[in-house]
Amino acid sequence: HLTLKRVLLLVSNSTLHGSGYLDHCQQQISDFFGKSVKRVLFVPYALHDRDGYTKTARDKFRTLGYEVDGIHEAADPVEAVRKAEAIFIGGGNTFRLLKSLYDNQVVSEIRKRVLEDGVPYMGSSAGTNVATISISTTNDMPIVYPPSFAAIGLVPFNINPHYIDPDANSRHMGETREQRITQYHEEVDTCVLGLREGCMLLVEGNKATLLGSTNARLFSRGKPRVEYNPGSDLSFLLNDAH
Amino acid sequence: HLTLKRVLLLVSNSTLHGSGYLDHCQQQISDFFGKSVKRVLFVPYALHDRDGYTKTARDKFRTLGYEVDGIHEAADPVEAVRKAEAIFIGGGNTFRLLKSLYDNQVVSEIRKRVLEDGVPYMGSSAGTNVATISISTTNDMPIVYPPSFAAIGLVPFNINPHYIDPDANSRHMGETREQRITQYHEEVDTCVLGLREGCMLLVEGNKATLLGSTNARLFSRGKPRVEYNPGSDLSFLLNDAH
Ligand SMILES: [Ca+2]
Ligand SMILES: [Ca+2]
Repeated sequence: HLTLKRVLLLVSNSTLHGSGYLDHCQQQISDFFGKSVKRVLFVPYALHDRDGYTKTARDKFRTLGYEVDGIHEAADPVEAVRKAEAIFIGGGNTFRLLKSLYDNQVVSEIRKRVLEDGVPYMGSSAGTNVATISISTTNDMPIVYPPSFAAIGLVPFNINPHYIDPDANSRHMGETREQRITQYHEEVDTCVLGLREGCMLLVEGNKATLLGSTNARLFSRGKPRVEYNPGSDLSFLLNDAH
Repeated sequence: HLTLKRVLLLVSNSTLHGSGYLDHCQQQISDFFGKSVKRVLFVPYALHDRDGYTKTARDKFRTLGYEVDGIHEAADPVEAVRKAEAIFIGGGNTFRLLKSLYDNQVVSEIRKRVLEDGVPYMGSSAGTNVATISISTTNDMPIVYPPSFAAIGLVPFNINPHYIDPDANSRHMGETREQRITQYHEEVDTCVLGLREGCMLLVEGNKATLLGSTNARLFSRGKPRVEYNPGSDLSFLLNDAH
């Protein structure tokens, strides 16, 4: 079964309030890539300044013992994916990211490397959105038009990164995050895992575990919402038929 | 010149905190449609429950002296637009709204009626987004995939409805609204008018005026942001070359 080789670390947010870039998940990153990975292919497509973003990722990953290659530095991005030991897609604008992944024709190659070859995939924020079925539960503005909202599809559900509870004191009348996800479920019945800032999902084959310091909230069409603590086994989400 | 007949009332939000549906702009609605309009064609495509939404709009508009026809109640929506005395597109999910406008083939017919025939157009929230160049500055989730982000194009700029200032006390690390608009300007140089909840833009031919109780904030690529009070003349935004 293809999915048995899959290893994913899907992080809600790159930066937690009061700490530096990826500080809050650095232990999980080290555990995830381990000792055998030496180089990580970084995909900076979600931000406009790809060089600056790659430097940020490179500086952080060096402190953890990994070298970073920017996919935009490669002459052939598809070839870069083919050769990658490990992949990290960073956050930013999800529409810009997905459009660039399609423009550079790496969507299916990344899917193949991760699902068939077991290349470790880490995503943060927008990089977590594109690992799922579609980008339909991103929080970002549609600043560019991708050829599809279908994403890499490494898991058979959707994620809302940076999930945030309604603020009871707010006078703002725009939809709450939960209302937006409810609108999604008026159209589609795919489950949505709301990852609050501070938590992340570890997927190893057909096993999924919530990690980090905050809870996740699961939205299933027509069912009560369910809260999960860090350490929870969410493997049932990997079953298409759950 | 086609745009001389254009009359638009582009409202940021349907409901202001602490008041009922369209209460905060009912005086402006009465002034806008005036005494000659008897029936308003309502477009409820942004919400899932079109009948319920049309009832809400109908009940409110009756108190102001106008009858409402739901476009989804008509056998032929294009014909309903052709016959409309006035048009109101309500808020909800902007992606669902724009996709439905395209699916029902009314985008160009609404544009024609408003710009060529001077049919009054009112939009609220998502209904304001679709009146502009594109939906690229909506706050909504991309729950469905429209055939394009290009919108009706009644004005040559973009609007961000429900514009909200950064919360200095927030520990949330998702992009602020201003950061999202800055990302848009990394891609496109179209101006974005951030309409805070409580304000609205009145367009009469080539004259534009801010109305309501709150300020708007104008975002132009590479320029300082500018605040405008209610009563401000924003006609310069209607000039393609500003
Ligand atoms: Ca983002
Ligand atoms: Ca909305």
